[in-house]
Parts: sequence; C-alpha cells; structure tokens
Amino acid sequence: MTSSAPGSRSPVRLQAVPGAGQPDVTPALEDLYRGFEKELLVPLWTQIGDLMPLHPQSRALPHLWRWENLRALAAQAGELVPVGRGGERRAIALANPGLEGRAFATPTLWAAIQYLMPGENAPEHRHTQHAFRFVLEGEGVWTVVGGDPVAMRRGDFLPQAGWNWHAHHNATSEPMAWIDGLDIPLQYLTEAQFFEFGRDEISGAERTTPERSRSERLWGYPGLSPLAPQARPATPGSPLLAYRWEQTDRALADQLAIEKEGFGGTVEPGHAAVRYTDPATGGDVLPTIRVEFHRIARGAETAPVRETGSSVYCVFDGSGTVTAGEQTWSVTRGDLFVVPSWQPFSVRSEAGATDSDARAIDLFRFSDSPVFEALRLNRTALAGPEGNVT
Amino acid sequence: MTSSAPGSRSPVRLQAVPGAGQPDVTPALEDLYRGFEKELLVPLWTQIGDLMPLHPQSRALPHLWRWENLRALAAQAGELVPVGRGGERRAIALANPGLEGRAFATPTLWAAIQYLMPGENAPEHRHTQHAFRFVLEGEGVWTVVGGDPVAMRRGDFLPQAGWNWHAHHNATSEPMAWIDGLDIPLQYLTEAQFFEFGRDEISGAERTTPERSRSERLWGYPGLSPLAPQARPATPGSPLLAYRWEQTDRALADQLAIEKEGFGGTVEPGHAAVRYTDPATGGDVLPTIRVEFHRIARGAETAPVRETGSSVYCVFDGSGTVTAGEQTWSVTRGDLFVVPSWQPFSVRSEAGATDSDARAIDLFRFSDSPVFEALRLNRTALAGPEGNVT
Amino acid sequence: MTSSAPGSRSPVRLQAVPGAGQPDVTPALEDLYRGFEKELLVPLWTQIGDLMPLHPQSRALPHLWRWENLRALAAQAGELVPVGRGGERRAIALANPGLEGRAFATPTLWAAIQYLMPGENAPEHRHTQHAFRFVLEGEGVWTVVGGDPVAMRRGDFLPQAGWNWHAHHNATSEPMAWIDGLDIPLQYLTEAQFFEFGRDEISGAERTTPERSRSERLWGYPGLSPLAPQARPATPGSPLLAYRWEQTDRALADQLAIEKEGFGGTVEPGHAAVRYTDPATGGDVLPTIRVEFHRIARGAETAPVRETGSSVYCVFDGSGTVTAGEQTWSVTRGDLFVVPSWQPFSVRSEAGATDSDARAIDLFRFSDSPVFEALRLNRTALAGPEGNVT
Amino acid sequence: MTSSAPGSRSPVRLQAVPGAGQPDVTPALEDLYRGFEKELLVPLWTQIGDLMPLHPQSRALPHLWRWENLRALAAQAGELVPVGRGGERRAIALANPGLEGRAFATPTLWAAIQYLMPGENAPEHRHTQHAFRFVLEGEGVWTVVGGDPVAMRRGDFLPQAGWNWHAHHNATSEPMAWIDGLDIPLQYLTEAQFFEFGRDEISGAERTTPERSRSERLWGYPGLSPLAPQARPATPGSPLLAYRWEQTDRALADQLAIEKEGFGGTVEPGHAAVRYTDPATGGDVLPTIRVEFHRIARGAETAPVRETGSSVYCVFDGSGTVTAGEQTWSVTRGDLFVVPSWQPFSVRSEAGATDSDARAIDLFRFSDSPVFEALRLNRTALAGPEGNVT
Repeated sequence: MTSSAPGSRSPVRLQAVPGAGQPDVTPALEDLYRGFEKELLVPLWTQIGDLMPLHPQSRALPHLWRWENLRALAAQAGELVPVGRGGERRAIALANPGLEGRAFATPTLWAAIQYLMPGENAPEHRHTQHAFRFVLEGEGVWTVVGGDPVAMRRGDFLPQAGWNWHAHHNATSEPMAWIDGLDIPLQYLTEAQFFEFGRDEISGAERTTPERSRSERLWGYPGLSPLAPQARPATPGSPLLAYRWEQTDRALADQLAIEKEGFGGTVEPGHAAVRYTDPATGGDVLPTIRVEFHRIARGAETAPVRETGSSVYCVFDGSGTVTAGEQTWSVTRGDLFVVPSWQPFSVRSEAGATDSDARAIDLFRFSDSPVFEALRLNRTALAGPEGNVT
Repeated sequence: MTSSAPGSRSPVRLQAVPGAGQPDVTPALEDLYRGFEKELLVPLWTQIGDLMPLHPQSRALPHLWRWENLRALAAQAGELVPVGRGGERRAIALANPGLEGRAFATPTLWAAIQYLMPGENAPEHRHTQHAFRFVLEGEGVWTVVGGDPVAMRRGDFLPQAGWNWHAHHNATSEPMAWIDGLDIPLQYLTEAQFFEFGRDEISGAERTTPERSRSERLWGYPGLSPLAPQARPATPGSPLLAYRWEQTDRALADQLAIEKEGFGGTVEPGHAAVRYTDPATGGDVLPTIRVEFHRIARGAETAPVRETGSSVYCVFDGSGTVTAGEQTWSVTRGDLFVVPSWQPFSVRSEAGATDSDARAIDLFRFSDSPVFEALRLNRTALAGPEGNVT
Repeated sequence: MTSSAPGSRSPVRLQAVPGAGQPDVTPALEDLYRGFEKELLVPLWTQIGDLMPLHPQSRALPHLWRWENLRALAAQAGELVPVGRGGERRAIALANPGLEGRAFATPTLWAAIQYLMPGENAPEHRHTQHAFRFVLEGEGVWTVVGGDPVAMRRGDFLPQAGWNWHAHHNATSEPMAWIDGLDIPLQYLTEAQFFEFGRDEISGAERTTPERSRSERLWGYPGLSPLAPQARPATPGSPLLAYRWEQTDRALADQLAIEKEGFGGTVEPGHAAVRYTDPATGGDVLPTIRVEFHRIARGAETAPVRETGSSVYCVFDGSGTVTAGEQTWSVTRGDLFVVPSWQPFSVRSEAGATDSDARAIDLFRFSDSPVFEALRLNRTALAGPEGNVT
Repeated sequence: MTSSAPGSRSPVRLQAVPGAGQPDVTPALEDLYRGFEKELLVPLWTQIGDLMPLHPQSRALPHLWRWENLRALAAQAGELVPVGRGGERRAIALANPGLEGRAFATPTLWAAIQYLMPGENAPEHRHTQHAFRFVLEGEGVWTVVGGDPVAMRRGDFLPQAGWNWHAHHNATSEPMAWIDGLDIPLQYLTEAQFFEFGRDEISGAERTTPERSRSERLWGYPGLSPLAPQARPATPGSPLLAYRWEQTDRALADQLAIEKEGFGGTVEPGHAAVRYTDPATGGDVLPTIRVEFHRIARGAETAPVRETGSSVYCVFDGSGTVTAGEQTWSVTRGDLFVVPSWQPFSVRSEAGATDSDARAIDLFRFSDSPVFEALRLNRTALAGPEGNVT
C-alpha cells in the first residue's frame, strides 16, 4: 500500500526500450516498470544519459533578442499596462526558447526590460531575489533603496541585493527603459523565495533627485571603507548602490592603454574587462550573480571559451560578431543574447570595410558563476576552432 | 525580425486574464501579448504570484515511500536488470509526485535504493555529482573509492564527493540493498555535470575486503589529521569515506545521557542529533548536501520547524509519527519521506500502549542546506501549532 | 648534567622574596632557586604578575614627537648621511621611551621620518616586513614598486606589502620628507624576516614620473576589479599602491555632510573615519597593519576608548587636544604620538577662543589591529571619564 | 621642546661607527646623534643588520633540557612551594639561554613542568593566554574546564583555549607532573593579556573523576559534530578537551602500516605524523599554537627542514639523535628541546648496536605556526647537508 490517495494516477511514466545498458524488454520487466510507476519510482538506467551526461548539455539555447523589438513592445506596454500594487513592475522578461516558455533567460537567470512612464512610481517592496539594473539608454528614474534615492543614467550599473526595500520613480517628462537582472529562476528552482510589500507611496524626501546617493558618498571611494557601524550592510551584497559609467569606461580605457605600453593589464590582447565587486569584501557584487563589463578593441577577438554556468550579455555600444555554441550573430547596440552552460563562446569586434570603419564592442555581462564557485562546481576550458575542448 | 527560424512556433503562451495587478483585457493588450510571444518575452505581471511568492511554495509534495515496497521492487529488479556499463547502477529513485514524474525526490535531491546481487560488480566511473551511501540493512558490499575498498554495513554512512572514481562489488553470496543520495537534480537544473567512464573491472587488489579502509585509518581518529600531503583530499568533500554506526550510535546515546545528567547536550529535550562533517574543515561532509542523524527519545517530540530547502529522511530504527506540512504519517524502520522547503516538520517517537512499549525513533536525514547557506538564502523559523510562523 | 657549557653563567637570576602567593624564604628554597638557575628554569609564581596581568600593562608609554624637531633633524641628516647600499634608507625611527631605546614606536610598530635629497635614489630591495608611506608635506619623490613608478604627494597613503621590490627617487630639486610605517618590531619579535637586495640603479623607464601609476589605473576605480590574471596580486596586501588625498578628503567630508542631513554616516557625532582597504578583499590594506584616517569636526570630541593593540597617530591638519592614558597633549600639524595597548584614548578638536577660531583636526592612524583580529585577541571597551572601563 | 620631562635621561644610546652603509664619523654626525637621542629617535642605518636580516637570525638558541633534572626540581618544589591563590600554579618554565633569562622557551612560546601533590588543588582562574597540557608520565589529576572534569593520563593532550575557567585537582595519593604549553611570550610581547580569578574551591560535583569528560562525549567521535547549539564553543579553540593517547598511537601505527602496504600515508619514509585539530573547524587546535605528534620509525631519519617560527619538542618515547642548528643531541624519554626560527632541524631514530636494539622515537611538538600563517609570514625550505637552504 502506498501513501498516495487511492485511484490517483501516478505522474511517473516509464517505457521499456531496448538499448545499451538497458534490460531486456520482457513481460516481467513491464510488470516491474508498472510497479515502479505505482510506487512513484524511476530507475536510473532509463535516465542516466539525460541526468548524468558526459558534460553539461544545456536545455537552454543560445538566443538573441533585438533591442529595437524589445523597446517597441515595452513602449506599447507603457500605454496599456499600469504600474502598481499587485503587478508591481512593468517588466518584460526574456523567455529562452529551450525552457518551455518560462520567463527564464537561462536556467538560473532572469533578464527583463523595465519601463517607467513620466511621473510614474513603482511601489515599494522587497524580496530575497538578488537584483540589479543596468541602463542602456535614457535617464530620469531614481531607484529608492532603503530610503536612499539613486540616479540611473546610461551605462550605470545598480545592484540591489536581496531583502532591501526598493521603489522607483520617474522624475521627468520622458519615459525610461532599463534592463533588470535577477536570480528569479534559481530561487524558483531551489524554492528559497520570500517577498514583502512595502509602502504604496514613498515620502517626499525620498522623491528628491540627488546627483549622488548616500551609498555612493559612503562607499564610492576606491579602497576607502567607512568606519561607521551603520554604514556596514546588514544584508549580503554590495553596499555601493551605483557603479557609474564614467568609472567603468575609464577603467577599460586604462587597461587597453597599459597593454599598449607593454605591461599587460588585459585578459588577452585587445580584451579589457572589469568585474563589479562588493567593496566591503572584494567579492561578487551579489551572492548569486556575477556582473562584468568587457571591451573588445577594434580588430580584436576573444579566444573561444567554455564555462559551466550561463550568461546573459547586452551590447552596450559598438558592434561585432558573436559566436555562442553553433549560433553566430551580428550584434549591435542594445542587443541581448544568452550563452548556455558549456557552450563555446567568442566575440569579434566589427572589422569594418576600411580601417576607419572598424569599431570596438562593449559588452555588459551577467552570469551565475558565484553559484558554481560557492558549490565548487565551476570549470573553464578553452574551446578549439570547432568548439572542441582542447 | 527575430532570430527565430521562420515559421517556428514560439513556446511562449500568454493569456490575458483580468485581476488585481493585471491590465485591462483589450484587443490592444491581446496584440501586445501576441508581440511578446513572437519575440519570446513574458511579462512579470502575469507571473509574479508564481515566481515571487510571499514565502516558498514548494512544487514538491511531502510524500512517504514504504521500505517494504521499495525493497521488493529492488529485489525484483535484481532478477531482471543487469548491472554493467551503460546503465551503470541498479538504482531506483524516488520520484516526488509534485515534480512531474521526474526522478527527483525534491527539487535538488536524488534518493534511491541501490541493489547488488551476490558476486556482482558495478563498473567504475566518476561524476561531478556529490553522492553518499547509507546502509539500512545487510552487508557484504565494498565500495572502492580511488582504489580504496570500503566496507558497507548497517548504519554506516559513506560519503562520495564528486569526481572521485568509484566501483562497487558484492563479495558475498547474499544480495545487498542500500540508499544512495546525490545532488543530481541540483546539478541537472544548474547544468554543471561531468561524467567519465572508468575501468570495467577493478584490480584484484581492489577486490580485497579489509575491515577498515585506508581513508578510515588516515582520517578516522577524532581531532587528528594526518600531515602527509597526499592524505589531503584533492577534491572538495570529506576525505573520510566511512562513518561507522557504532560511533554514531554512541554519540547519540552520550548526548541523551548528558542531558539526563543536567548539562544539556541535546538540540531540545529528548532530541539528540549529530551532523556528519568533513574532518579536514569541520564543515559539511559534501559541498551540496548536509547529512545528519537524529534520535528522538521515548516520549519525546520535536518542535515544529520550517526551513528553506528540502530534506529526505529515512527511519533507521524505531517508529513514531511524523508531520510534514499537512501530512501526518506513522512511520517505521526503513520508511523514506520527503519534507519540501518551508513546510513545517515535526516528529514524535512511538508512545506505545504501555510505557514499556514506547520506543525511540532514529532518523537519518539529508538536505540541501549547504547550498542555501553558501548562497546566503537560508532561513529557519519555529512553526506554531497550526503550522504558522511564530 | 645540563647541556650548558661547563662554567658558563646562567642568564637566569631568581630572587626569593616574601609575598602573597610566594613560598616561604628558607635555605631550602634558596637551594631550589639555585637549581632552577643552573637548569635554566624560571618558576611561574615569581613572574605571574608581570606575565599574566589582569589587563594589558603596556611597557610602551604614551609619547609625543614634535614634527618640527623630527624634520629639522632629518634635514640635518640629509646633509651628513648618504643614501645607498648598506644603510639602504635615510629613515629615522621613533623610539618609545618605555622600550629600552629600541627603534620601536610600539611593541609591534615602527614609525620613521624618511628624507630624500634632490636627485637622490634609494636603492632597490625587498623584505617581508609590510610597509607604507604617508606624505605629510612636499612632493617630488616617486616610489617604484615592482617597476611601477608611483607619485607621492601631501596626504597620499602608499602601501607597500611585504616582498615587493621597491626603490625611491627624488625627481625634483627640493628635498622631500615623509612618514614610513612598518611592522619591523613584530617581525623582529616573531623572527619572521627575510630581506633581499635588488638593483643598485633602476632603469630609465622606471625613472619616469607619471601622474598615475599603473596600479591606480588597474585598481583605482571603486568597486571595479580588473579581470586580467596578472593584475591580481601575487603577494598578500593591497594591489592598489596609492590612495590619493583628494579621495580621502572627500570621503570624510561626505560622511560629515550625511550626518548633518540626518542619516548617520559617522562613527559618532562629528567623528568621520575611513579605513584604507585592499580592493581585492575588502580587508585590511596590509596583513599586519591597519590604517585609518579620522576627522574630528570643529567642536567635536571622541568617546574615550580602550583597545588591545597599539597605534601610532600623525596630526595631518588642524589642531586639538589628545588624551592617551594619563597624558594630555595639545597637538598640531605633523605631530606624531603613540597610544599603547589598552590605554584610554580620546581626541578633542581645537575649541578656539571664538567660534571662528575653532578648527577640525585630521588624524592619520595606523595600528596592529589585524594581528589581534587574526589571532582572535582583539578587545575594545569604552573607558569612563577617569579612564575606567565602564 | 620635547615632551620628555626636563633632565630625564633618554633611553636611546647611539654610537657612531664607521662601516659599510654608515656615514662618516664627524663631529657633526656626533651632534646629530645626540639630537636623535634627545628626541628619542634611532636611525635605521645603525640598526638595519639587526632588524632586517637576510633571513631570521633567532635570538633564541637551540637548547635541551633533561627530564630527570626537571622532574627532580619539580618534586623538590612540591615540598617547598604551596599551590594557591596568588602564585596560582606550581609551574616551572624553560628559560631559553638566548632570551635573557626570561621564562620564555622561545620568543613566542612558554613550556613548563607543572606538579601537583596528592590531594592538592590548583585554584580556578581564566586568562586570554591559550594553553594546553601534555602528560609524559603518571595520572590522577583531573583538570576541570568550565565545570567539566577531564582526566589526564600518559600520552594525553589536553588543549585549553583562552578565556575558559579552569582548575586542577589531584584525586590520588601520588604526585603528578605534566607539561604545560602556552603562548605567554607572544601575548606578553603584543600586550594582549587579560586574567581573571575564579573560585578558590570548585564544587563537589566538579571533583568527580569520570573516565570521559562531557567534552569528549560530545566532540570525541570522528567526523560527528553535535547539533546542540550550546555544544558549540563560545570562545575560539577546540571544544574537544582531551585527545587520548590510544587514538594518537593507533593513528601513527596506521600511517606506518599503510606506508608498508605501498600507499604512502607518511610525511616521508618512516615518518608518521598527526596534527591535533579543532573538530569544529578542522584547523589548529588553538589559535596561536600548532600541536603535532611525530613518530620516526626504527632506522628512519627526517630530511633537514627550516621553518619560520619556533618549536618546542618533547621526547615521549624511544630515543634517537636530534640536530637543531649547529647542535646535535642524543635524546631519550622526557627530554625537552627547542628549535628556533629558521634553524635546520632533523631527527634520526636510535640505530642500536644490533638491529633488535634499534628503536623508534616518538616526538610531541608544539609551535607558533598558526601565528605565521594567519599573518602570512610562513616559509619552509629544505636544508642541505650542511644546513644550507637548497
């Protein structure tokens, strides 16, 4: 007798199929499989190829979304879909074609375009999901995190670690769009989520539009940490709420200049990159999401690499050619694409018809690497010209 | 233009439904939703209740599997299903009724009964999935880990951290069954898996049946670590390959005795518990799986607790009553059950008709807690009498 | 028979003295003590008050050195003492009056004024001692660390973690003085030191005088870490070789402004402070030395605090009154003073005869706190008005 | 004007001496040096050879103390010196001949013989100094740590982390001696010490003489940690208060047996060794002291090694030949010796006139290595036949 309700139909369905490592298909085997189904059991030998592959075989597919399409649909949603309590945010998520239409860019990562109309407010809430915003274009929205208004402008990266109260308000007469990244799929799969509604309206003082947030004034100086105990973050994740484009841009330019001077400084020739880090720990800016910015100089190209874990990229500027698994795309400003686990990945900046047409390409990237490192599941390998591991 | 092949049908399906936080259902909204589908986009406002619940709402269900049924089916499989290259192991996994018939006990954990006939050999392989064996009954199989034969006997816990070569051989004339625990679902969902085939046959020297493995002789002394560099584990996870029942049993008995002497020592009155740890770090025995053994003394009962993350329990001995979410079961030796994330859980040992009928209950437990702690997503709360968080 | 050479005189000298916890002084006891001396033994009971006091009783004394005196003597040394191989550096160290004339500012810390004449070069070497430079006045010297020339200007803090090659050259026609801090006493006492001579002359390329060092261009952006593997430091300690005054000054001003706006940000009212940190770890800038900068606003005063471990302070700007143990000093720009372990310490900024005379005081501080924290020996307590622990 | 009292004599004494790296000795230089003395300053160039040597030049000397002499003097002290409040303990410390007669075995470590007469009690106290006991011979004393009586027998190692209350009582009619190890010199030099007197008399319940302490019943099972929150240590250092000789002896025998079977297991041929570790962390048993036990098999010999940091060894059993720096000693049961920082060290077990005379040698060792590792100052090198670094 099982503990299942009588008459309930088991969700387990097993089919006896001949093959290597499979038992002979006999009436006795069929009986056994019916017994398994009744008792909610699944034998390893029918599943092992799927569950324990020789290397990651991602269900997610490499896929590209064009910014112009996303933006147009988001603007259309701006007219039709209100922002308020219940729906909470006017955010439209990438749904990887390999993941059954779920709002998952990859098995662990969420990526969306969020859109706020002039004068609109997104109500306050908090959740355990770790989040960030990255601004591709426009400005005028302030995100208010724990009562601290933070300006959002092109190129800015704004982390939002889990369980911090936050709201957004558009202080201008123009709509504004940006990219949201979260670990919603990971927390959905592991079932870790908590969510709490905050105030419907933030206070007048929180609606101010300061040039610099208090978090930047406390934590935005390189290598200088405030001693004040209340300046230390109570929750995991970076206490610095904005990483400004001017800094990122100059850091990348410096790396390329140092390379030219003959002192290295780049990941590989013509490939500058920074990681956004938590100034209080030097570690990843969010416990479950790694965020980086890569610049591939004119005429440069990255070595094809495979990594465990998945990434979402956004072309911030320039254009070039991207190869992800068996896909190759010409990409340009605003395009978003996904690289699944262990798929070989490389980028080439725009060659141009003439030398003066050539352009660098700037790529914003986020991934689930901190999860793999924390669980000691991370691996990296160079991929050969045909994508073979070398 | 999207990058999808022309004529391909989008996996995204959106339905406009009126409701709190939802936009008005108009032809324009329907148009917008068709645009989303075409571009592989999903709006947050149609999904937020599922993706971002107020607290974890596990898809997995509390469920109980009876040992007698598992064992009978495993014995039947022993007659019909060969063990060898391809199928690799005669392991039969618990399939949680809430998880669509997949071989997943919980969203992150795999639990199976494995069965080896007299004289049989399970061929060598290795994989990144972290694994362990726990012996409910019988003996006679040696698991050979990195060339070190390790005896398996009732009550023994045998961790098997990822990427170690391992094979099993039954050195006796009796079949033997045991429980396998792995993080197969977690690695499947995050897409981290690697697998490699080893030798079909291990050497004669590896078929010996020593009382104690080399790992126990190097790492099995309390608080004493070998200095020899090659004794240090190269891979994450415990270098101690067997935790013997005699030790576990005595540790639990000691805790209850110290409690009686008036000095605490137990988790709560009548509730002794140990965690299996890596002697080289003091941390969890496996990077993704926490393993514990709990003894609830006669007449004792645990406080109902909720935790993020899921657990699988096995009744090692005794009997009692278990409450998991809204389920209550009488459980006895060998029964296996699952407690999903954030479901209140408590155990009561067998009261018995008379005092002398009362019995303690011994529970072996494994969970995904190390994942939640590493990602800083762990939460615990006492649950009130009706299962409310207090 | 002891292993001492015959006739050698034992360094142990014991005196039998009556007192609490002391044995009766008898001829037998005198015999025993002579036996101890012969065998190189010392009984605890004659020493316990000195070795195991109720709380730290520092041998070091609070002491103040006036900058004008240091500077004058350093200038005089500039005329008389050459800089070159052997003597290595024209550095003149503070000798705490309680430490027997040794060149130790405190039991663990070294503090010195270093002086370089126009055009002079201090030859290259490296050592395990962790070091830093802090510039009180002047400019024109470049310190060349691992081949990277780093400018030194008023207010700049320049860490120099152990075992990095370094040389200095004065590129101007003016002499320049600065403050050196090292853990020489700690490494002397624990006997951990290694030292290696480098090139007598650095190359022409290393004599350039860039505005920004390569280390600043790689590591000087807040929250941005270079991905290039060779940018990661090979030795412990910060890869950022200069922390510029403009940043420190603005960070302190921001903290005081945030306090005025009503949002905290300071350690206590009117007391802003930053810690110099390693951007790769968020931890202390050097493994054995903590470095901080404190600003006490006009009219403000710090609460008296005791801490295990010792500190050296330098008045960078302004003036005020300092209390260290039983000493109280009026201090002004350039003055250096020492606070021994567990001595109560507080600062008051200059009150001024009129409000407009009042001034803030800026204090540069370094301490051995990382040692105490690593060994888990750190304690802090508020001290009462009479310096009592409250 | 200096801050020194007028007329006070400066402890600084400088002598102008000609030599490499030294300034010319002129009247002006003498004037300068007098100025330094007056201002409590010491120039680096007169000190650098002593303070910053090319490698550690220990002030401590290799030295050997014979157990028979220590024991005889301790017994004599048993007759003459009372144990009680004030003197606290009848402990007699090794005074390294290079350390000016101080009760320091090495610059950081204290080693003493402690002696307790029949029926005697050593009163309760606690201190931040980390301590342990190691029993060379005899039994009958129970050390009571935090109210938990712990038996002491030959070969047992008993750690005593800082700030735990402890007392000892001799429950037999025989005197007992044992070895105490502490970090008294380290805490004296860094000035970190706190000390508190406890009860003069412990309770009757604490005078019981159980075979096993509660700490062993909670933490003495290999790889099993109690879940009870109050079983977790509140202070740094191991919660396991006794490491029994039977375990240590068997662990060493197992390593040598595994080596014979062809599987390594030893540090080098014939050299078995274990480190005592904190089962809650896998790290060193005490934050500032590393403790190990080494067995050199018959006919075996260790490679000469240099390490930063100092060690104290005790010959627990057997005999052999020890080389420490330029000293070579024949050592036997009970002998204690010191190896200073960076001095080459090796051991050879007793060869014997005939093969059957040959004996293994068992060495108990403690060192300050955790300090060097925490501060990242640790280095190790093989020393050549003449003690040169190779």
